[in-house]
Amino acid sequence: MEENMTSSSRNEPVVGIDLGGTSVAVGLVTPAGGLLECGEFPTEAGRGPEHVVQNIGRRVRSIAKSSDVPISLAGIGAPGPLDTATGMIVEMPNLGWRNLPLREMLHRELGFPVFLENDANAAAYGEFWVGAGAGSRCLVGLTLGTGVGGGIVIGGEVFRGVSDAAAEFGHMIVEIGGRRCGCGKSGCLEQYASAAAVARRAAELVAAGGSSLLADLTGGDVSLVTSEMVCRAAGEGDCLAGRVIAEAVSTLAVAVSNIVNALNPDTVVIGGGLAGAGDLLFGPLRAQVADLTFEVQCRAMHIVPTALGRCAGVIGSAGLALVRSGAGIGVTREG
Amino acid sequence: MEENMTSSSRNEPVVGIDLGGTSVAVGLVTPAGGLLECGEFPTEAGRGPEHVVQNIGRRVRSIAKSSDVPISLAGIGAPGPLDTATGMIVEMPNLGWRNLPLREMLHRELGFPVFLENDANAAAYGEFWVGAGAGSRCLVGLTLGTGVGGGIVIGGEVFRGVSDAAAEFGHMIVEIGGRRCGCGKSGCLEQYASAAAVARRAAELVAAGGSSLLADLTGGDVSLVTSEMVCRAAGEGDCLAGRVIAEAVSTLAVAVSNIVNALNPDTVVIGGGLAGAGDLLFGPLRAQVADLTFEVQCRAMHIVPTALGRCAGVIGSAGLALVRSGAGIGVTREG
Repeated sequence: MEENMTSSSRNEPVVGIDLGGTSVAVGLVTPAGGLLECGEFPTEAGRGPEHVVQNIGRRVRSIAKSSDVPISLAGIGAPGPLDTATGMIVEMPNLGWRNLPLREMLHRELGFPVFLENDANAAAYGEFWVGAGAGSRCLVGLTLGTGVGGGIVIGGEVFRGVSDAAAEFGHMIVEIGGRRCGCGKSGCLEQYASAAAVARRAAELVAAGGSSLLADLTGGDVSLVTSEMVCRAAGEGDCLAGRVIAEAVSTLAVAVSNIVNALNPDTVVIGGGLAGAGDLLFGPLRAQVADLTFEVQCRAMHIVPTALGRCAGVIGSAGLALVRSGAGIGVTREG
Repeated sequence: MEENMTSSSRNEPVVGIDLGGTSVAVGLVTPAGGLLECGEFPTEAGRGPEHVVQNIGRRVRSIAKSSDVPISLAGIGAPGPLDTATGMIVEMPNLGWRNLPLREMLHRELGFPVFLENDANAAAYGEFWVGAGAGSRCLVGLTLGTGVGGGIVIGGEVFRGVSDAAAEFGHMIVEIGGRRCGCGKSGCLEQYASAAAVARRAAELVAAGGSSLLADLTGGDVSLVTSEMVCRAAGEGDCLAGRVIAEAVSTLAVAVSNIVNALNPDTVVIGGGLAGAGDLLFGPLRAQVADLTFEVQCRAMHIVPTALGRCAGVIGSAGLALVRSGAGIGVTREG
C-alpha cells in the first residue's frame, strides 16, 4: 500500500527528476504521460547533497514559472540502494552519499510531496506507461550505461522485491571468476555489457595495438574512447569495434535468457548508451536469446529498444509519483 | 483471473496430485493445508497417458472410500511446459507426451473439476501455504532432483510469467560453454546442482580412480551411485563425495545470488534429493550467497530447507485448486 499524501489535481502536470552521477534531468509530465518540458544540468555531486537539492529546486521553480501551471507533486529516480517507503537513500556509491533523507530534503525545498524510486525502476515504468512496452503484462527494462540498471513491471506495478532491491541485473554473475566488478564480486554483467565496459574493452584492444578507426578518432589517446565512438565505428565496419560489440551482445544474450527463464516477460526494453548500437545489437541479441530460451518463452516476448531514451526516468518517476500519491495515471487508472 | 468452476464446500478435503516421471504421489489435503493421507505409485509412463490417468482415478477413489468424506476437487502438478488456463500439457519430455488435455482427461476420470499447475510452482506454493516459507511476501522454491525445478510465489500468488514459463531456474546458464544440457544449451544450472548431476559427477570421479566410500557402497559399479549415497558419504567424511557436494553448492550459490539479485525474495526454499545433504549444503550455501549479494538483499532473506519434502507438490496442488476454484484456502483467504 502506498502513502496517500497529496491531492494533485487530475490534470496538473507532475515534476519528474532523474538523478544521475553526472547529470540531473528534470521534466514536467502530464497525467497522460506527455512530456511538456525536459532539461539537464550537471549533478556536481562533489558539492554535497544540499547543493544538488537546491539546484533541483531552482530548476523546478524555473520550469513552473515558464510553464505557468500549478505544480504540487514530484517523483525522483535515484540510483540505489534506497528505501522507497521512507524516501531515504541508503547508499549512493557514485556520489558518495549515505543515509540521506532525500525525499524529505526535496519536499522541504519544493514545498510539495515527493516520491523516491530506484532510477532503473522509474525508467522501466516510463517505458511501460507510454514507451516501448506500453500495455505489457510483464516488462523488464535494462539500461546499458555506466553500469547496467534493471527494472521490472508486473501487472502494471513496479516489482521491488521485499527490500527495494529487486532487478539488480547489472550484478548477475555471467562468468564465474570473471572480470572484477566495483561491487566486490567477479563476473558481473555490467563488466561485460554496459556502455562503460564496451568503451573500456575497446580502449584495451586499441592500446594493445589493435588496428581501428578508434585510434584515429581519439588521436591515439585511448582514454578518450566512448561507447558512442565504438558504436559508430562498428557501424562503419570497423572490425575491432564490431568485435567488441559482438562480445558484449553475446554476454548480454546469456543474461537476457536467464532473465527470460526467470520471469517469462512479454517485453524486454533495452536502453542506455549501448542501445545506440542499434541493429548491431538488437539483431544478434534477438537471435541468440531465441537459441537460449524455450520456444514457449521466446514466442511470448519482444526485445525492443527504448522509446523514451534519456527521458524514460523523468517520465517514469512522474508516473509513479502520480500512482503512489493516489492521483492515478492516464485514462486507465483513474480512481 | 481464475476460473470459478466448482463449489467445493469450505471444509471438504481436496485431492492433490504430483505427477513425476518415475512416480505419482496422490494425497488428500484439508482446506487448512493439513495432509490427511498421501501415497505414491509408479508412473508407468510407457503404458500411455490413459493408463496413468486411470491409475490416478483408481487411487483417488480408493482414498475417497477409505477416508469416507465427499471429494469434489483436485489439483495436479506436472512438469512443464504446460498451459494452466486450458489444462493442456504442451510437452512432457521425460514421459514423451505432447499436446495432452490432461486436465480434461482427469476431469472425465474423476467426475469433478481438476486444476493443472507446473509441479515446481505447486511445490513452492505448498511451502508458502503451510511449509518452510509460510507467510513469505516473496518466495522462491528450488527443487534439486532429476533436474532443478523452480517456483515463485509473490504476494501469495504463484508468479507464472506471461506464458506459464517463469521460474525455469534449472536452465539458468551458470557457465558459458559449460556442460551440455538435455535442453540443447550448455552450462545450465541443472547440470551442476541437481541431485542427478551430483550422482553423475561422483560416478565420473570414482570411475576415474578416485578413492571413495562410494566404490565400496556400489561394489565398484559406479552406475549405481545415487545422490543419497553421495550425501551420506560426504556426511561420513568421504573427501571425494565432499568435494562433489562442495562443487555443486558453489555453483548453486551463484545461481541463488542471481535469483536474489533479480527478485529480492524473503525466502528461498531448497528441496529435492540434494537438500538431503543438510548442513553440508545449507552452511556453505548461506555463506557464499551472503558474499555474492548486497547487504540489503541478504539481510531480508532466509535460505531454508523444505518443510514438506516429497509432499510439497501434493499440498501445493491442492491449495492452488482451492484458490483457483474460488473456494479459498485456510482461514486467511475466505471469500
